[in-house]
Amino acid sequence: MAMNLNNSKKDKINKGLKMWEQAKKLIPGGNGLLSKRPERYAPDIWPAYFSKAKGVEVWDLDNIKYIDMAYMGVGTSILGYSDNDVDAAVKTAIDRGINTTLNAPEEVYLAKKLVELNPFAGSVKFTRTGGEAMAVTVRIARAYTGRDKVAFSGYHGWCDWYLAANLSGENKLEGHLLPGLFPKGVPAGLRGTALPFEYNNVEAFKELVSRHKDIGTIVIEGARYSLPSREFIQVIKSVAQENKMVVIFDEITSGWRITDGGVYKKIGFQPDIVVYGKAMGNGFAIAAIVGRHEVMDAAQDSFISSTFWTERVGFVAALATIKKLIQNKVWEHLIGVGTKIGEGWESLAKKYSIKLHVTDFKPLITMKFEYDKLNSAIATLFIQEMLKKGYLASTSVYVSYAHTNKIVEQYLKSVDEVFAIISEAINTDSVYQKLETKVKEEGFKRLT
Amino acid sequence: MAMNLNNSKKDKINKGLKMWEQAKKLIPGGNGLLSKRPERYAPDIWPAYFSKAKGVEVWDLDNIKYIDMAYMGVGTSILGYSDNDVDAAVKTAIDRGINTTLNAPEEVYLAKKLVELNPFAGSVKFTRTGGEAMAVTVRIARAYTGRDKVAFSGYHGWCDWYLAANLSGENKLEGHLLPGLFPKGVPAGLRGTALPFEYNNVEAFKELVSRHKDIGTIVIEGARYSLPSREFIQVIKSVAQENKMVVIFDEITSGWRITDGGVYKKIGFQPDIVVYGKAMGNGFAIAAIVGRHEVMDAAQDSFISSTFWTERVGFVAALATIKKLIQNKVWEHLIGVGTKIGEGWESLAKKYSIKLHVTDFKPLITMKFEYDKLNSAIATLFIQEMLKKGYLASTSVYVSYAHTNKIVEQYLKSVDEVFAIISEAINTDSVYQKLETKVKEEGFKRLT
Repeated sequence: MAMNLNNSKKDKINKGLKMWEQAKKLIPGGNGLLSKRPERYAPDIWPAYFSKAKGVEVWDLDNIKYIDMAYMGVGTSILGYSDNDVDAAVKTAIDRGINTTLNAPEEVYLAKKLVELNPFAGSVKFTRTGGEAMAVTVRIARAYTGRDKVAFSGYHGWCDWYLAANLSGENKLEGHLLPGLFPKGVPAGLRGTALPFEYNNVEAFKELVSRHKDIGTIVIEGARYSLPSREFIQVIKSVAQENKMVVIFDEITSGWRITDGGVYKKIGFQPDIVVYGKAMGNGFAIAAIVGRHEVMDAAQDSFISSTFWTERVGFVAALATIKKLIQNKVWEHLIGVGTKIGEGWESLAKKYSIKLHVTDFKPLITMKFEYDKLNSAIATLFIQEMLKKGYLASTSVYVSYAHTNKIVEQYLKSVDEVFAIISEAINTDSVYQKLETKVKEEGFKRLT
Repeated sequence: MAMNLNNSKKDKINKGLKMWEQAKKLIPGGNGLLSKRPERYAPDIWPAYFSKAKGVEVWDLDNIKYIDMAYMGVGTSILGYSDNDVDAAVKTAIDRGINTTLNAPEEVYLAKKLVELNPFAGSVKFTRTGGEAMAVTVRIARAYTGRDKVAFSGYHGWCDWYLAANLSGENKLEGHLLPGLFPKGVPAGLRGTALPFEYNNVEAFKELVSRHKDIGTIVIEGARYSLPSREFIQVIKSVAQENKMVVIFDEITSGWRITDGGVYKKIGFQPDIVVYGKAMGNGFAIAAIVGRHEVMDAAQDSFISSTFWTERVGFVAALATIKKLIQNKVWEHLIGVGTKIGEGWESLAKKYSIKLHVTDFKPLITMKFEYDKLNSAIATLFIQEMLKKGYLASTSVYVSYAHTNKIVEQYLKSVDEVFAIISEAINTDSVYQKLETKVKEEGFKRLT
């Protein structure tokens, strides 16, 4: 692998990566979120840290400005960074106090709003992070059904109930989570309690359930790269009804992006519980478990309580975010812009004869290069060249309300130029030679 | 029980309790934190919700102002409500963006500060809530030791690893957590993985360890109502060394209140990991796991990652709070004021011949009435009468930096008058007759 690090560029991005080196010594893994590791983009040139952000613009520690055509706070900043309306509401709340011996009324207002937006539901619980919300949800479902076994598809966080799937010794989470992920520190007694099945694979699901009649809970993602098929949903519905299983839609990633709530609204399916997080507070930490009253009420038979769940900022941010989402039907904008990006990629790929596949879920539009072992290197080259043009780019874009058509058009002009480089690199077998950085990491890997 | 509800009072507090009735329909248990339930104070008259708060003052939904001589945000607001310095730092961070695709440098600054303040430690991980922090800590300890069994004393949150202690069928958490708490929804496979022992009971601890040689982790609270005894700590130290066990100090409640960090600093004991939460961000949601590098590094062998752990507000709030704590040696103020409150209670109890015991940990000063089955009713009468005098009071006070000597002196004048009422009620056997509310709940109970 050639490492022709351009010195001027290297100097420019020095501060962020220098801080990252320090971070890796102080924090195991360098930070609190895998998706924010520079190693997952372009390890030797990614700016790593921000100083400020507004709309879709992000400034790094060297005060270089980038347009975010990548993860927008890993799916959190759905309205754009530092949204004036949400931030004004939060700052007013801060001035009036955020955490007292008495309760914040916004906890009730937000619960009311979420029940209104999810008519199947009667009750709500809040947490501050998505992983925590899923652990509370599984606790409630297990308390309600009295059955420990959970069948699931997709990614649902770091907690024991989920990672238990890998205790079998095989890498059961392969395809759901990340390659290379082992469940060290997850108690062996949980073996056999978390059972994965493939998304949209009806036969695999049926087969799993026929082998484990004592499954009490089914957990699926609202969407990741594609929507659940009608048949898949129908089978889940009938199996769940027949066996009195609780169905949970994890909409932490998919929520608010194609409806005024979950993807489940679009596909005509009523889960027992839907879980929201990420986008709901436009970057502020808040997650919600919204479910049928009868199921949710089982929460009262268990101890589920935490100090910071009652802090005001999260509720206030979510109320302001949801208000703006609905007033502007933001999801329509996200679908439109995501479609435009996807079509742009496809058309440019055709222009340069690049083999790539664009996935279906528009607000988290994703391209997958189709060159087998070369895919990661090509993606890295894309990120590297886009970075030079002032973009934080990736093979996925979490579209935000701040992504205007004009921004997308300018972005696609840059993609045009970068696809030309990629095409030439592929055709001349020189992808690695063109890289000025190590190749991005895809899986879960110990950092050194 | 007489229910002579004073109508004018009842009208005044109507809004908060009205909202609480609504809350209980929408949210199982009414809110996210047991300690903020009005049922735990004075069920029929407690104001329940706040509109604003500043210093030690809290306004309810009817705009009635109270002085908080109770829980100060359940231990979170150590500097007082709406602290100007912390809030200014947070608002600046909000203006500059809180959650982008790049990392917040304050995550590194805070890690650095915590390692500096905890010289035994080399690494830090952050979460947003205390329960979550303890679950991450236990995951790391289990990954490091390769042993699932955890011996613990005290309260450590809602997560499975801890509630598993009650799976034995007996109420093992009695005395540690709350009476009436059952572990519905906790997988049966965790039975035998969480083993409680009594705080400061050397023999009980030794006996437990002798029966379970495969314990990998010992978890104790830094302090709750009393400090760990020297002998208790010495035994834990030697047993842990001998058996290569990891020792965790849960200082979520005790941290920052008697030192510039944990209680462990005062008693000359080096844990492997210390956990902070509550007070560290003056009300904003942030928790930290601070530990020896060798142990913490096991985090890299497990998947521990969550989006909102990387949001900027928590780091910024903690940096500003810690700075102010240290600049003003706030813990000295807390100890001084807590001592003054405790001595005030004792002296007034003597004056009125009320039997009560005041506990040792000054910054969370606590009085325990000694009338057996009458204790809860007496405590309720205390809360009720203090409420009439404009205080949110309880039998515990989380002292804050905003509690001045003058405030405490005025408070003690009110306690004097209320103790007179209590004394008379006890002597005339009319405690229940004097109550204008149901008696406070002490344990964990389904709300209806």
